[in-house]
Amino acid sequence: VRHPFEHHRATDAPRLSAAGDGPARTGSLRAHNLALVLRAVAAAEAPPSRSGLAARTGLTRASVSGLVDDLLAGRLVRETGVPTRSGVGRPSTGLVLDEEGPAGLGLELNVDHLAVCVVDLTGAVRVRRTAHGTSGPGQLDALVTLASDAVTEAGEQRLALSGAALAVPGLVDPATGELLVTPNLDAAGLRGALTRVAGLGGVRIMIENEATLAARAEQRALGSAAPRSFLQVSGEVGIGAGLVLDGQLYRGRHGWSGELGHVTVWPGGRGCGCGSDGCLEQYAGQQAILRAAGSPDDALGSIADRARAGEPGMLAALADAGEALGIALAGALNLLDLDAVVLGGAHAELAPWLVEPIEAQLVRRLVGAAVSRPVVRPSTLGADAAMLGAAWSVLDRVLDDPARWLSDEPSG
Amino acid sequence: VRHPFEHHRATDAPRLSAAGDGPARTGSLRAHNLALVLRAVAAAEAPPSRSGLAARTGLTRASVSGLVDDLLAGRLVRETGVPTRSGVGRPSTGLVLDEEGPAGLGLELNVDHLAVCVVDLTGAVRVRRTAHGTSGPGQLDALVTLASDAVTEAGEQRLALSGAALAVPGLVDPATGELLVTPNLDAAGLRGALTRVAGLGGVRIMIENEATLAARAEQRALGSAAPRSFLQVSGEVGIGAGLVLDGQLYRGRHGWSGELGHVTVWPGGRGCGCGSDGCLEQYAGQQAILRAAGSPDDALGSIADRARAGEPGMLAALADAGEALGIALAGALNLLDLDAVVLGGAHAELAPWLVEPIEAQLVRRLVGAAVSRPVVRPSTLGADAAMLGAAWSVLDRVLDDPARWLSDEPSG
Repeated sequence: VRHPFEHHRATDAPRLSAAGDGPARTGSLRAHNLALVLRAVAAAEAPPSRSGLAARTGLTRASVSGLVDDLLAGRLVRETGVPTRSGVGRPSTGLVLDEEGPAGLGLELNVDHLAVCVVDLTGAVRVRRTAHGTSGPGQLDALVTLASDAVTEAGEQRLALSGAALAVPGLVDPATGELLVTPNLDAAGLRGALTRVAGLGGVRIMIENEATLAARAEQRALGSAAPRSFLQVSGEVGIGAGLVLDGQLYRGRHGWSGELGHVTVWPGGRGCGCGSDGCLEQYAGQQAILRAAGSPDDALGSIADRARAGEPGMLAALADAGEALGIALAGALNLLDLDAVVLGGAHAELAPWLVEPIEAQLVRRLVGAAVSRPVVRPSTLGADAAMLGAAWSVLDRVLDDPARWLSDEPSG
Repeated sequence: VRHPFEHHRATDAPRLSAAGDGPARTGSLRAHNLALVLRAVAAAEAPPSRSGLAARTGLTRASVSGLVDDLLAGRLVRETGVPTRSGVGRPSTGLVLDEEGPAGLGLELNVDHLAVCVVDLTGAVRVRRTAHGTSGPGQLDALVTLASDAVTEAGEQRLALSGAALAVPGLVDPATGELLVTPNLDAAGLRGALTRVAGLGGVRIMIENEATLAARAEQRALGSAAPRSFLQVSGEVGIGAGLVLDGQLYRGRHGWSGELGHVTVWPGGRGCGCGSDGCLEQYAGQQAILRAAGSPDDALGSIADRARAGEPGMLAALADAGEALGIALAGALNLLDLDAVVLGGAHAELAPWLVEPIEAQLVRRLVGAAVSRPVVRPSTLGADAAMLGAAWSVLDRVLDDPARWLSDEPSG
């Protein structure tokens, strides 16, 4: 029996490029080439034929055929059945990713909401379940129930789960997969809930920071239009950030990168649950914005409605939040010289009121701003980004290392 | 006639791993394999034989022999002349990098000092020239004179310069190679000076941020002991930072990453030459420390001596500088979750007084600090790091793409 959960560490993530740095070892050569062919199918604009894949990958036609047969058997690709072109010889059929093959179960656990989805290998969302206002002791049971419904529905659609991933706002211990620091989340019992979710799907479950997953989702959704290096703010009660640097998701030493909400903006300022003072989330988190607008007990989701209604106290609170975000982001941009800042999570909806005060701080504080300034814009995926990122992280593992999926898959 | 200078952009840096991501194109295959063999020689603990290189690279013995012959002809490697082991058949000789082959000219231009060196392919410093207290209009002439002396001496040692690189504290325009923002440096005439230096060596000259080069030098000097991800502070009058993330030098969109000195520490605080307020360099730069100690006109180099002598005003100024550094570094570490912070430049010598107040801020402000905190320590290379990094960046280009060196090299 395998341990049901594992943390997705940067160091053990399979990387397609690794095999090319040196000699391909015998055992890994087939794995490398399977991934090469599968990625070529995934990246193709039109369904490629076996010959097309041979040309694209530099492998021989015979090698490609053998690899494609393995991918077909494992339901990673399927034939379109439509000959890709007429000509002499046997007609060739096009290959596409198989939407009836492995699927990823993505879960998000946040202070105010829960979300679960099942995504197939083509990236299509096949099942989606969300719940709001579920904080407190029953939250983990509610998450397991959502997951159970989603797994049942995935089974009805004959999808084979290849894994599950949970997005959480907090630091995960890379050794044990447990949440370490969760000032905004009741994490008791999380291990038990994860084990129950893993048992539902008969799969392992990874746990990762939600901001990191949301940034990966944004990158995937934008495809070749994604900025090369960007920071994606994940604004909720806390504020996380996902970092894509030079096209790669950056996780940091323990997977703890992106703790933007605890960057000091006003030293000696408001005390924070983390033990420090002047943290960004005390000025620009959802709870902080409500508090500044004089209504700390209102629903978190009411901020945008009240700003749209032109409530002066809320507009002032958002301007202050934008200023604090701008100070923190100017620091991040001075350090990292990024192409873009993406406002995600709850901050995506608040972008109309946040972008201007953020940009005012960048003009003032960012070296080189007079010559070139990064774009500041809302996320394309809005509130779904972390949940989708979790499901896609499962599928990325299949795409990066199809050989593992092929050998893990139950026979029959 | 080629344009004599170019900026080392992240996007055009040759990467050994690139060829492995997909099929190697015919034209690039030899280039890839030449680099593979040269890097294997560079990385070997003992001089490898041709057979050893074949085993290490996965190439055939015949391919390796042909590639080694090319590298020998281009003086990139040489034979030790000592058989690596006895046995049947022809004795094999070991191969090492050729210290009489291509060399890199590294220059550093800073507010208070100039430095020039010539480094050979093995990393040995063959020529070193420095000058202090040379700020002002004559500074660029002094730099050209130092470079001229160094080039002459390299010629006497029969070294062939493969290029030159200049380390500067400031932003370089990636399109034109010109300095854009140099609040602390008189940059007039820099283009002319660079052209003169390039002419001296008959080579092209790159220009890059000194903090980035210093971090690369630290990484190279530490070899396999280098932290996987670290930030290296380059403290002078201004404060830059070099970033190595997941083992790779990170430059950012324009090569402007690491502007730590302009991270806002105290919003609304001291005005800065960059137009902002509360910038780190106004609290922790050399000039700021002298000013805080009540002696703004003293020599920059006097800070450590006065601290060693126990002067109370200087000790208080250093404690405040350390606090400001700690606030800025806690922000960087919350974002990047690094293994280490390295204090370089003038801050290397000041580490005995800075480390404690920095760590106090990290304990307070860094999420996860209770579980795991990064090391904070002085640079191993001290003040030479940027100059060495400049020379090594030239040699990195040769090691990454020896085919270019072989084809550029004058015949005969």
